[in-house]
Amino acid sequence: MSAPWITYRPEIKVLDCTVRDGGLVNDHMFDDGMVKDIYQTCLDAGVDYMELGYKASKKLFAPAKFGSWKFCDEDDMRRIVGENDGSLKLAAMADAEKTDYHEDILPKDQSVLDVIRVATYVHQLPVAVDMINDAHQKGYEVTCNLMAISVVQEPEIDQALEVLRETPASTVVVVDSFGSLYGEQVARLVKKYRDAFDGTGKEIGIHAHNNQQLAFANTIEAIIHGANRIDATMAGIGRGAGNCPMELLVGFLRNPAYRIRPVLQLLQDRFVDLRQKLEWGALVPYNITGQLNQHPRSAISLLAGDDKDNYVEFYDKLVSDL
Amino acid sequence: MSAPWITYRPEIKVLDCTVRDGGLVNDHMFDDGMVKDIYQTCLDAGVDYMELGYKASKKLFAPAKFGSWKFCDEDDMRRIVGENDGSLKLAAMADAEKTDYHEDILPKDQSVLDVIRVATYVHQLPVAVDMINDAHQKGYEVTCNLMAISVVQEPEIDQALEVLRETPASTVVVVDSFGSLYGEQVARLVKKYRDAFDGTGKEIGIHAHNNQQLAFANTIEAIIHGANRIDATMAGIGRGAGNCPMELLVGFLRNPAYRIRPVLQLLQDRFVDLRQKLEWGALVPYNITGQLNQHPRSAISLLAGDDKDNYVEFYDKLVSDL
Repeated sequence: MSAPWITYRPEIKVLDCTVRDGGLVNDHMFDDGMVKDIYQTCLDAGVDYMELGYKASKKLFAPAKFGSWKFCDEDDMRRIVGENDGSLKLAAMADAEKTDYHEDILPKDQSVLDVIRVATYVHQLPVAVDMINDAHQKGYEVTCNLMAISVVQEPEIDQALEVLRETPASTVVVVDSFGSLYGEQVARLVKKYRDAFDGTGKEIGIHAHNNQQLAFANTIEAIIHGANRIDATMAGIGRGAGNCPMELLVGFLRNPAYRIRPVLQLLQDRFVDLRQKLEWGALVPYNITGQLNQHPRSAISLLAGDDKDNYVEFYDKLVSDL
Repeated sequence: MSAPWITYRPEIKVLDCTVRDGGLVNDHMFDDGMVKDIYQTCLDAGVDYMELGYKASKKLFAPAKFGSWKFCDEDDMRRIVGENDGSLKLAAMADAEKTDYHEDILPKDQSVLDVIRVATYVHQLPVAVDMINDAHQKGYEVTCNLMAISVVQEPEIDQALEVLRETPASTVVVVDSFGSLYGEQVARLVKKYRDAFDGTGKEIGIHAHNNQQLAFANTIEAIIHGANRIDATMAGIGRGAGNCPMELLVGFLRNPAYRIRPVLQLLQDRFVDLRQKLEWGALVPYNITGQLNQHPRSAISLLAGDDKDNYVEFYDKLVSDL
């Protein structure tokens, strides 16, 4: 093809993780009106999946300290989506070692959820496999987000993919948790995942972070190399630097099933105000942690303090601690 | 190479266009202290070229309405850089049809400038060629920025490159004026320019805009495909959505000649405050003009008005005017 960017691949599906990943900025304390508007926008924009939040353990996370979307109780979800009659599939994320999955993930016929997204670091893989099997047996579509892949050694990635190949997870997501990957690295990982799952029918996903202003570009790179499950958030909201912005992704995807106008409406109705209250985006401290391939927690901590613009001291400390 | 992104190509040279392109946000009214700090930062960071501004016609642009860097008079430049003893080369941009180049561009032995960057739309090419020859005869290194390439027809690009091949311009820059290009398109253009100048020794440059948060990613893409002259600005400042941020570029380039710490120092000393006064970046209206491959002037106008967050009305108007 001489200009592949003006065509589209119908296999591509978009997942909105605004409430789940954006909830990491405000302890998931979105009010119902906000979540309803995001839900309606996903419907109107033709988004395929919406992730409503986490299924976090109430033993580890005190419900009084978090909003509903940390736990995604059935009643809370139905208050927003009713029976969710329509084509939008609903997902929740289950973090390895932070989810009482045997109890809190109901059989699918008792839940409005369609998909369980198991998130795991590579060292938690055995737990994640048990969670994948549990959710699959309960009747869900199950995906696996293999997190922080930019700090995992090659033989461990290979081993993890070999293990995941044998699970019923239908999608495995390349997750650039630290926003440190460049496009060439994303391309290499997507190709590696494709090779590892060749013949299984499993799809590859991409979940990019924007620390180096590369979330959208890396998402495109993953798509070019075959990723068909794409994560994005409205206005790019998400922990720290945030995610691939839905308004950019939908502008790029040529599939007429997706519509940008409802996304723009949501941005002006809800996110102009939200930006006055919450901070996210590719700020300089996140640039630095991304460049150093580190978890953004040090930058989040800096930005919450009184000396948030002292980039040089922050940089010096991170480099001296290497 | 298995991981080319951890190596570097010594042929790559970085040009800082903070004062020139950033000056489009404030009519080039930077005070001397600011310009001196940017100059010192370029020296300290190992940047190869600094563009001080335009050589604009005083017949077209009233000097009372603009800062010194719209005109780059010799006295103004020397007030900042003295005799510019050191390795940093100084550049000014000369816009086709907006420059009295015969009079205002002095012979190089009377100027502190090293480089004249001739900027042209494709329909102004004959003027640009005369300007290139003029500056070359006066003793300068001359480059050519072929602007708004995303709206130029293929035969016209080919013709322009054929004409530029015969000029003494030593670099021709791929300029994504509207911030509309995706990485694949940038790669294609860089390859086309390389092919067109094969055997001439001319270098290819990249000047990206950030309307779709792709300026840094597209700059990397251009580098991968052989561009060796790279434009960036501190904090990404520039008209509208701005440019490729220097702090990201320097973090990516592995050449130890470049140092990020002075850039971070400048950002905290100067750009935290500047952001309170001037607005630039990949705001939603710029996303939209970028997606539609349009000049950002409509978005600049929207953002200067009272209804700046009405993205949907803005989008509807642009689409209905197509």
